[in-house]
Amino acid sequence: MSEDVKAYMQHLGRQARIAATVVASADACLKNSALLNIAAILESSRPQLQAANRQDLDNGRKNGFSDAMLDRLEMTPARIDTMIEGLKQVATLSDPVGNISDLHYVPSGIQVGKMRVPLGVVGIIYEFRPSVLIESISLCLKSGNATILRGGSETIYSSQSMARCVWEGLKTVGLPLNAVQMLDIVGNEAVHELITMPEYVDVIVPRASKALVERISREARMKVIKHLGGICHVYIDDCVDPDKAERIAINAKTHRYSTGNAMETLLVHKKISGGVLPVLANAYAEKGVELRGCSRTRSIIPSVIDATKEDWSTEYLAPVLSIKVVDRMEDAITHINHYGSHHTDAIVTENFTRARKFLREVDSSSVMVNASTRFAEGFEYGLGAEVGISTGKLHARGPVGLEGLTSEKYVVLGDGHIRQ
Amino acid sequence: MSEDVKAYMQHLGRQARIAATVVASADACLKNSALLNIAAILESSRPQLQAANRQDLDNGRKNGFSDAMLDRLEMTPARIDTMIEGLKQVATLSDPVGNISDLHYVPSGIQVGKMRVPLGVVGIIYEFRPSVLIESISLCLKSGNATILRGGSETIYSSQSMARCVWEGLKTVGLPLNAVQMLDIVGNEAVHELITMPEYVDVIVPRASKALVERISREARMKVIKHLGGICHVYIDDCVDPDKAERIAINAKTHRYSTGNAMETLLVHKKISGGVLPVLANAYAEKGVELRGCSRTRSIIPSVIDATKEDWSTEYLAPVLSIKVVDRMEDAITHINHYGSHHTDAIVTENFTRARKFLREVDSSSVMVNASTRFAEGFEYGLGAEVGISTGKLHARGPVGLEGLTSEKYVVLGDGHIRQ
Repeated sequence: MSEDVKAYMQHLGRQARIAATVVASADACLKNSALLNIAAILESSRPQLQAANRQDLDNGRKNGFSDAMLDRLEMTPARIDTMIEGLKQVATLSDPVGNISDLHYVPSGIQVGKMRVPLGVVGIIYEFRPSVLIESISLCLKSGNATILRGGSETIYSSQSMARCVWEGLKTVGLPLNAVQMLDIVGNEAVHELITMPEYVDVIVPRASKALVERISREARMKVIKHLGGICHVYIDDCVDPDKAERIAINAKTHRYSTGNAMETLLVHKKISGGVLPVLANAYAEKGVELRGCSRTRSIIPSVIDATKEDWSTEYLAPVLSIKVVDRMEDAITHINHYGSHHTDAIVTENFTRARKFLREVDSSSVMVNASTRFAEGFEYGLGAEVGISTGKLHARGPVGLEGLTSEKYVVLGDGHIRQ
Repeated sequence: MSEDVKAYMQHLGRQARIAATVVASADACLKNSALLNIAAILESSRPQLQAANRQDLDNGRKNGFSDAMLDRLEMTPARIDTMIEGLKQVATLSDPVGNISDLHYVPSGIQVGKMRVPLGVVGIIYEFRPSVLIESISLCLKSGNATILRGGSETIYSSQSMARCVWEGLKTVGLPLNAVQMLDIVGNEAVHELITMPEYVDVIVPRASKALVERISREARMKVIKHLGGICHVYIDDCVDPDKAERIAINAKTHRYSTGNAMETLLVHKKISGGVLPVLANAYAEKGVELRGCSRTRSIIPSVIDATKEDWSTEYLAPVLSIKVVDRMEDAITHINHYGSHHTDAIVTENFTRARKFLREVDSSSVMVNASTRFAEGFEYGLGAEVGISTGKLHARGPVGLEGLTSEKYVVLGDGHIRQ
């Protein structure tokens, strides 16, 4: 059995490598046609997609899935709209592949520049949300990469029905169907093979639970584009416009609780804490946000629950917020770099010097001044879309869009030049 | 013992992390002073450096090292000159840290840009050539990174004497000595710890034998900046200026045999092979280069040895060259992508369309038109210096200089902006 799985995965890998060379040299026009075709086919396959999704939902209910799990699994008409819209938007993005930048003459007389090229084969591992399939393959295809998809078994019918649309779209324009492959076996063994065959897979993008992402990161033999949590901070400096501070602190926490870029800990300079915290406490109370704070926070707002050390390193993804009063900005930076997850952190300040220092010293994939952490995503940054957020420092960092799915090679142009 | 090594390495790691924050926020002036101080201290320590090196050489002779090994181990006065010159040159390079690029407004009104930041802690593993220590730490220091060095035990006295110069230079400007640490234990266990503690080491740069680099790549839990070989090709197209072709083919092979960017296989279009190969064969014969070729090559130059399949994937690093006649450029590209090592490959052609296609489709870290593969290095590309060549696609590719030792984070500037 183990040997069978290995052989099957190696077979997929070889097919992906062959397809990858074709997709890598496809021009933008062809790739855009494929994306728009897939969009049109999804549109005309709505009844089939929803019927397939109902099978997954029925199985989920039989397996005792929670309402939250069933919600993530469901493909509502609005979510199908979003997928179709997403494909169309990716088609409008400019194609990064083949772009040459910084082509310049060096003293020897040769010209040296960099050409953007696809990574090759991208492994996508996802659970529950079937729309990840369309989001991922659209970006991978546009950036000239082949993909091998592994959806959770709970999405099997939805995933297969979408994959059929994708294959039909590829076929119409003459791109190889193996540019998008989907594992048709389940089980951890196949995942393990996928993430340990660097000869066939260049990068893994896991869109899965924290536990699975951790396991993948431990076992993978190639780069994993990932973040393991979003413990995002807003620090309110004492030199501040209270209106901006309150607006940002409310938005960063309450705009959407379940996202990685939501604030989980609020840090407040001691000088301003007496003025800002009561106002914020009222606003959070209205929204039903539970507050946990340090002793100084609790001396200002007695209703606040005592925060334990664990709170500072917890990603609530829920209407819960931890609050800490700090003596100075440097303490806020130290706290963020120690307890944070290097995702997204913001300062609210009118002080130029502190803004400059915060930007430099906070070691996160996005660092913000006077803006809500909720902005940290591909669409808001103008990348168009993203396969995920990377908190790693090597290769892509922050929201990963088309560019993060490419690499650069050096190109050298000469006229018979040789080394002296 | 094993626990002791682990504890020791973790201790080094913790110290490196602390020092890394200090070096990361050091300004260019301070870092340049440190580099120039180290250069001056090396200059005034020449007698001590050479005495230490003699100890290593004596031990090497006792251990039966070959002449080639002893040569690599030796620190001649000229090689000390080169190290000192290298430090001065790195001091003149512009500091990449903190540079913000592409800061632009997006529709929501926030400004989004990218700031260049150090990677953190770089692990350097080297053998034989003690000068690697100075080359590596100068680039790591300038790019704001802390380093942990592990030199082969054969370089121990040389390495220690140089490290003392480095520490004195750091001390003079007030930078933490732990910004450059050196393992003072030998053995594989320490190397294994170094490459499996991603919490303390962000990237590994091995400057070692192929066998050791392979082992490191297999075991490392973090990115390894490396290449495993330089099987570089020159393809001579039929639409060609024979002068340029011959000049480049001679230079790429004979300029220096032992470097990764030397040509190992020459591919020649069948139409031109009868004209070009005899001329080249004479030139190579003069230089004492042994030729191994395909049957068509041998029918043109009968003295050529029969090339086996193994020849196409061999990095000779010696006056040996394999030659293959191909029917068309596409076959050359296929050969290069299959047998090459994704290091550096060149086409010699006057045909615009083929040049354009070759640049796009050859999957190597450097792809060249009408230039010798010998140009593929940091100095020639204007990077100033390099810690190595990377043939991997993720993170840095090609010669890795200051920029390859940094990463980018997103910076977002607003004025109280929140997500709608």
